[in-house]
Amino acid sequence: MKNGKYFRYEFRYDKNMILCDIGNSYYHFFKDGASQKMKLDAIPRIKNIDNIDKVVYYISVNKEAEKSLLKYNECINLENIIQIESSYNQKEMGIDRKVACYGASDCVIIDAGSAITVDIIHNKKHIGGFILPGLSAMIGNMSSISNVLEIDINLAVNLNNVPKNKIDAISFGILKPIEIMIKYSSKDKNIIFTGGDGKFFSKFFEKSIYNERLIFNNMVKIVNSYKLKEKI
Amino acid sequence: MKNGKYFRYEFRYDKNMILCDIGNSYYHFFKDGASQKMKLDAIPRIKNIDNIDKVVYYISVNKEAEKSLLKYNECINLENIIQIESSYNQKEMGIDRKVACYGASDCVIIDAGSAITVDIIHNKKHIGGFILPGLSAMIGNMSSISNVLEIDINLAVNLNNVPKNKIDAISFGILKPIEIMIKYSSKDKNIIFTGGDGKFFSKFFEKSIYNERLIFNNMVKIVNSYKLKEKI
Repeated sequence: MKNGKYFRYEFRYDKNMILCDIGNSYYHFFKDGASQKMKLDAIPRIKNIDNIDKVVYYISVNKEAEKSLLKYNECINLENIIQIESSYNQKEMGIDRKVACYGASDCVIIDAGSAITVDIIHNKKHIGGFILPGLSAMIGNMSSISNVLEIDINLAVNLNNVPKNKIDAISFGILKPIEIMIKYSSKDKNIIFTGGDGKFFSKFFEKSIYNERLIFNNMVKIVNSYKLKEKI
Repeated sequence: MKNGKYFRYEFRYDKNMILCDIGNSYYHFFKDGASQKMKLDAIPRIKNIDNIDKVVYYISVNKEAEKSLLKYNECINLENIIQIESSYNQKEMGIDRKVACYGASDCVIIDAGSAITVDIIHNKKHIGGFILPGLSAMIGNMSSISNVLEIDINLAVNLNNVPKNKIDAISFGILKPIEIMIKYSSKDKNIIFTGGDGKFFSKFFEKSIYNERLIFNNMVKIVNSYKLKEKI
């Protein structure tokens, strides 16, 4: 541990550290090196499960589910700790986006889930971002417009040729806007994908990686940075 | 009338000509120089309304509504007449798209309604196209993903700057993909917009026009061309 900076960005997972990312449908836990999810209507008694006294470091986009977690566990909300340099209105930036961007220096961070958030980091600063409907939402959307547009889309449609049939015309109309918007915003930057559809979209870009655990990894970094500061 | 070509592309509206474009929600009629719409569950007794014997030239994307029209009126389906040169599977190309592309030589035709169809014409040939969800569908889609995304979008969002707040991030995520997809497909070509949102989108492009009556105008051209051939 040569200096604070080195310490701060290192991924150090402590066996006693339990992480929880509360989304709109699930509690996503990370403990003992593995992730697991629990429906929001479940009772998240983490302490009782393990019979030992552990702190849960969490982030949440759901107030009710957060209350249940707090009721049964000793918790620390990382929202109160995390700080990112950004020109985006921080009150309006979801905590999951903040965590995904944490510690990044020059890249585009994409969380491709039910919505697709695209955040641009330039010289260690978050300079803004936007939100697209996710892949499933786009597919559902097409079929809701007209039953003529209700098809099994071709995920392998060629995105470099103008479509010449209906399946390709609809598939292209769903996938190409996402591809082109990511290309437009990333320019020469590396792209870091996470989220359920992140692996699929990362295939379209040479300069990209898929990190399924980006949120948990960054939560660990935030906790470590916090602990370091506490010691100081 | 110097030659067939001149005749073919001229807009000649005959007072006795009644046009009908049957969509998914309405009969769109054009008669006596004005357009009017009638819900699909109405009974389209055009002949009785006028008390004169007129032919209705029509196109239809709705079989049931077409039957009702045929029951009460003498009709000619332009789908049996129209021919466009295209490398797109013609059986899978909606008749409204075919009519919109009719007679075009080097441009992009965009019908921005509940869906947005984009068709590319190069050297008088339709070389393909694609289908995007329409503006309302995109807005509805966002709010269906999460109530966090349910906002009044900012139609005046700056499409050249990375968004720095939530309303702009969502508005940009709805509008920019449509703008960028149209830019991508049009390159240096002129863009002809029609459809309910056509006027709005045409503002984003210098080399564009909005033609509210593109479908009806082209139906007239098709009928005139047909009549000419019949005489020959």
